[in-house]
Amino acid sequence: MGEQNRQWVLTHRPVGNKYADAVELVSMQTPDLAEGDVLIRNIYFSLDAGTRMWMGPREDSYSPPTPLGSPIISTVLGSVVASRHPDFQSGDLVRAYGQWADFSISRPDEVYVERVSRRLDDLRQHLGVFGANGWTAYLGVLEYGAARPGETFVVSAASGVTGALAGQIAKQHGCRVVGITGSPRKSAWLTEELGFDAAIDRNAVDLEQALRETCPEGVDVYFDNVGGAVLDSVLANMSLFGRVAVCGLLVHYDQNEPLPGPARFDQILMKRLTMTGFFSPDFYHRGPDLNRRMRPWYEQGKLQMAFDVTPGLENTLDAYSTLFTGGKIGKALVQVGDLDATSGLS
Amino acid sequence: MGEQNRQWVLTHRPVGNKYADAVELVSMQTPDLAEGDVLIRNIYFSLDAGTRMWMGPREDSYSPPTPLGSPIISTVLGSVVASRHPDFQSGDLVRAYGQWADFSISRPDEVYVERVSRRLDDLRQHLGVFGANGWTAYLGVLEYGAARPGETFVVSAASGVTGALAGQIAKQHGCRVVGITGSPRKSAWLTEELGFDAAIDRNAVDLEQALRETCPEGVDVYFDNVGGAVLDSVLANMSLFGRVAVCGLLVHYDQNEPLPGPARFDQILMKRLTMTGFFSPDFYHRGPDLNRRMRPWYEQGKLQMAFDVTPGLENTLDAYSTLFTGGKIGKALVQVGDLDATSGLS
Repeated sequence: MGEQNRQWVLTHRPVGNKYADAVELVSMQTPDLAEGDVLIRNIYFSLDAGTRMWMGPREDSYSPPTPLGSPIISTVLGSVVASRHPDFQSGDLVRAYGQWADFSISRPDEVYVERVSRRLDDLRQHLGVFGANGWTAYLGVLEYGAARPGETFVVSAASGVTGALAGQIAKQHGCRVVGITGSPRKSAWLTEELGFDAAIDRNAVDLEQALRETCPEGVDVYFDNVGGAVLDSVLANMSLFGRVAVCGLLVHYDQNEPLPGPARFDQILMKRLTMTGFFSPDFYHRGPDLNRRMRPWYEQGKLQMAFDVTPGLENTLDAYSTLFTGGKIGKALVQVGDLDATSGLS
Repeated sequence: MGEQNRQWVLTHRPVGNKYADAVELVSMQTPDLAEGDVLIRNIYFSLDAGTRMWMGPREDSYSPPTPLGSPIISTVLGSVVASRHPDFQSGDLVRAYGQWADFSISRPDEVYVERVSRRLDDLRQHLGVFGANGWTAYLGVLEYGAARPGETFVVSAASGVTGALAGQIAKQHGCRVVGITGSPRKSAWLTEELGFDAAIDRNAVDLEQALRETCPEGVDVYFDNVGGAVLDSVLANMSLFGRVAVCGLLVHYDQNEPLPGPARFDQILMKRLTMTGFFSPDFYHRGPDLNRRMRPWYEQGKLQMAFDVTPGLENTLDAYSTLFTGGKIGKALVQVGDLDATSGLS
């Protein structure tokens, strides 16, 4: 007998940052599990900018477009309530590719499903420091960005989950850390709570000029989450042999056609820069090792994370839209299940 | 007593690819040598696309703009006829930063001047395989591009000196090599003389589509000499984790303002590409080692080079302009001195 399950289904390709006409909340019974599937009661699911891309029609993004009529895919934290996969059983806490829904159905042999520990002071950190955002931040700083102690490190969307973690990791690594963000409140959070050396509110200044003043010797590593005009401003300020770790191109995601590339693209040659694009599913297998490396910093309070939790599946679209208008600090989650009730299952 | 010396002097910032109103041939006596200077009788000087950049006003290129009233700088091959530097003496064959002129005055403590051997079957190769173009090709393929045997390697401006050498080096390394060029004659040279696996005449086809057909599994390494629309067409065809070695952005050089970046810039993220800009003066010090590595291929006839030699200093501007209109195959040189007479000095 199925569970009543509400899920957000893509019905049309969205226009810009409007989702009400593109995604519909549909209620149905969960089907009988097929061999190899697990049924997960979602506690949280993650709101990720990248999801916007596969809502669109473009064929040349990470993944093919989500077919119309299909539920929206997202990373979820939840508990297995039924399993027809030998490696998972009812009561397991898992992080998985699931759906914007009350329940997720996932097939571990085909998509990411991983059992995670309940012994964590804040289980949301499975979708924060100790999940894909944390791994992305760690590798973006230390491998793709190849940051060295003493270097100047700049990160955009710095008050988002990945940006905030990247800045803190760079700081632990001995860099001078500058965050680009979009409001005084966010800037204050970065410098006062997270230990950034400086923050620039890009809505209040000429960013290129502000970077020139804040980073007079140039930017050695730029961790880019947004692309567009912000990238251009940083490119104009890169130091010789600098590195640009391209983690996200937020301004491109709600476009159905490619945008013009950075006008200062030629700086890659003039400054002999290295730019590298990276994407977390490529290194999910390194997660356990990366978590071990980050755990000491976390335990010392050096890797802090704010969570912006929207309660209620029905409120997903507004929360998602706010992700692109700069209204969020830290990790954006939707809470659809009860953590306490679930943790009692272990 | 000085020598009569004609030299090309920059009088105005050029517009587009027209040089007659911007550069003037001036004749004067060479001055008395200052302490630390050497006087070089030029045999050949090199015509390089990059020179166009510092003729312009842009401050954000490799080097500051050439001051108006100064001679045009270029790499020369010539013989020292007078020296006030302890490491050089009259009769030395040198490769140096000199001038578009009959004679160059260079200061080895401040600019590149290196004694080179007369024991080379074709001394022009000091400005070909065994000079900056060869080093650029070698490192662009093997280090910046990190080409691996079996991979698909694409190079633009493939019939230019750097492109032709890069393709041959990639071929020796075991890659499948495709050259992008601008005429049937150049395409034939690449495939019939240099051993490229394929060549695409970008003026005869839809380049993006032609690359899709020629490289059905994607482009693993792209050695870019041109930027612009060609780069976009290749970006659309890169394979996952591909590398773009950005050696030159020819289409940008005669622009006084930055051009828009590649419209397919977002492919750096979608395909997790690495793009690296590089510039030969950064690795001049590695030249002797790189020449040792390339010599066996050269001796086996695996690194061939065509020379497009313009005789006569007075013909420099027409030859230089042709560099940008695709009229050259191989290394473009101007010959201003007599090789035989000079070699008698050694």
